[in-house]
Amino acid sequence: MSLVVVGSVALDSVETPFGKKDDVLGGSATFFSTAAAYFTKVMAVAVVGEDFPEEHLAFLRSREVDLEGVTREPGRTFRWSGKYTYQLNEAQTLDTQLNVFERFSPRLPERYQKAEYVFLGNIHPELQSQVLDQVRSPRLVAADTMNFWISGSMPALRKTLQRVNLLFVNDAEARALAGEHNIVKAARSILRMGPTRVVIKRGEYGALLFEPEHVFALPAYPLEDVFDPTGAGDSFAGGFMGHLAQARALDHATLRRAMVFGSVLASFNVEKFSLERLRDLTLAEVNARYQLFRQLTHFEELPASVA
Amino acid sequence: MSLVVVGSVALDSVETPFGKKDDVLGGSATFFSTAAAYFTKVMAVAVVGEDFPEEHLAFLRSREVDLEGVTREPGRTFRWSGKYTYQLNEAQTLDTQLNVFERFSPRLPERYQKAEYVFLGNIHPELQSQVLDQVRSPRLVAADTMNFWISGSMPALRKTLQRVNLLFVNDAEARALAGEHNIVKAARSILRMGPTRVVIKRGEYGALLFEPEHVFALPAYPLEDVFDPTGAGDSFAGGFMGHLAQARALDHATLRRAMVFGSVLASFNVEKFSLERLRDLTLAEVNARYQLFRQLTHFEELPASVA
Repeated sequence: MSLVVVGSVALDSVETPFGKKDDVLGGSATFFSTAAAYFTKVMAVAVVGEDFPEEHLAFLRSREVDLEGVTREPGRTFRWSGKYTYQLNEAQTLDTQLNVFERFSPRLPERYQKAEYVFLGNIHPELQSQVLDQVRSPRLVAADTMNFWISGSMPALRKTLQRVNLLFVNDAEARALAGEHNIVKAARSILRMGPTRVVIKRGEYGALLFEPEHVFALPAYPLEDVFDPTGAGDSFAGGFMGHLAQARALDHATLRRAMVFGSVLASFNVEKFSLERLRDLTLAEVNARYQLFRQLTHFEELPASVA
Repeated sequence: MSLVVVGSVALDSVETPFGKKDDVLGGSATFFSTAAAYFTKVMAVAVVGEDFPEEHLAFLRSREVDLEGVTREPGRTFRWSGKYTYQLNEAQTLDTQLNVFERFSPRLPERYQKAEYVFLGNIHPELQSQVLDQVRSPRLVAADTMNFWISGSMPALRKTLQRVNLLFVNDAEARALAGEHNIVKAARSILRMGPTRVVIKRGEYGALLFEPEHVFALPAYPLEDVFDPTGAGDSFAGGFMGHLAQARALDHATLRRAMVFGSVLASFNVEKFSLERLRDLTLAEVNARYQLFRQLTHFEELPASVA
């Protein structure tokens, strides 16, 4: 039941074909925590600056996210600004201001250290390792990464991956990490780097879960309106890890359900700007969309006469 | 049980990152017929030139494909040559020689005219209409098209679409046809042009089936080795239409099974060059991969305590 996330809490400025918003609540730990909180209690580790609005922390507290691990430091909050074209799959980063995040050195409060489920958001792989040094006996360590670390900090990333049980990456990251274009071969290659499971996120095309002997493929929910893909990957990871922590199991059926809950949370997240859709999203809506995923993907066995 | 296909029979020269072959058996009617023949008797309408090897016709006959509608005309056979890079999703056409195909005017033999299921391969929309003029009372008319006709022959294509019940297109074609980037909106727009069903093929990302009130999404089978995507779309359509004709039903469950069989045939087709894989593919292998698609995509309902 105990889930720790370490990542960024940010103020984002986002432009999509449908509009533009400045300094809205963002960051990997924010999206992850909000999504995971539908299923379990989340303990967050992050840093914010003096300028970070108290109302955002109040929002996370209202979702029962434990913020003891979120420190407020002198300086400005981490800021990211990005732009999406009609090809909503990938953001173009316009500006990154690390600010207080530059000196971020994650410290886990005592009760966080007993966490059973850990999600290492997309931060420097050395910081990810530093978090793992503080966790005593996790049941499952999951991590995210990105091309920036794959191309710039591969030795550190390799070390961290040896301590990670489940890796979340997108197609391009999987290909870059494995140095292999074919996505099945890339996944198998990653499974030799440490993780025993790898989730490959493909945006509007869905997601794949690779285990040594099993593959699960789930399409994305077909949406008529995708407003803002920011945070989709982290809300996916949040729904996924939240369900795992709630279910307290790691069998295939549970992992597959986790894939669906991840996709459900991501699909809601992109329907509005920033965290707006998750702010008023109910658990009943989450469960209803799970059922819609069943209707979207279900097909019958072969008739006995054929099989 | 009676399925007519009209399309090309060609000699292809194909280059992929894995090799190069010249003048191998190709063409939309060829891939379609071979795939559909696993399920039902197929009647083909096409034209070949004086140079077309008799052994290729013998192969199709060995699959019980009715070739009364395939005429041999003076001149050379239609030739296509294309190249794939590591991005195997889309071919770069290097050369097209229409040859005898230039004067192709499809004529349906008497017994073809009573066909219940019709597949209009990717030929000029006016020729597609000309075929429909000769079919008496089809249960289902399906068609394929391509960007060449969408950008160059839209008025004729619009007319044909009004007589088509089911359209097969890929993402890019759907977007171009509808003038709409979002794939869900594009599909809904196509459903207002005539067809009551549209299948959107997305290569390695799978396929979507849109009906006015239902959507079905199926991932592609994750393959470690994709050798040659030529004919994948037509073998998809062949598996799909072959199953429909065999099942003699158009309910949701049957259409979904048809989506799976289409994906199964396409997934085998791309494993080797040209028709090579389908040459030795058995029905038992087809049905076994159908089951693998179940294992790939199946997930459980929510526990009753949650739902």
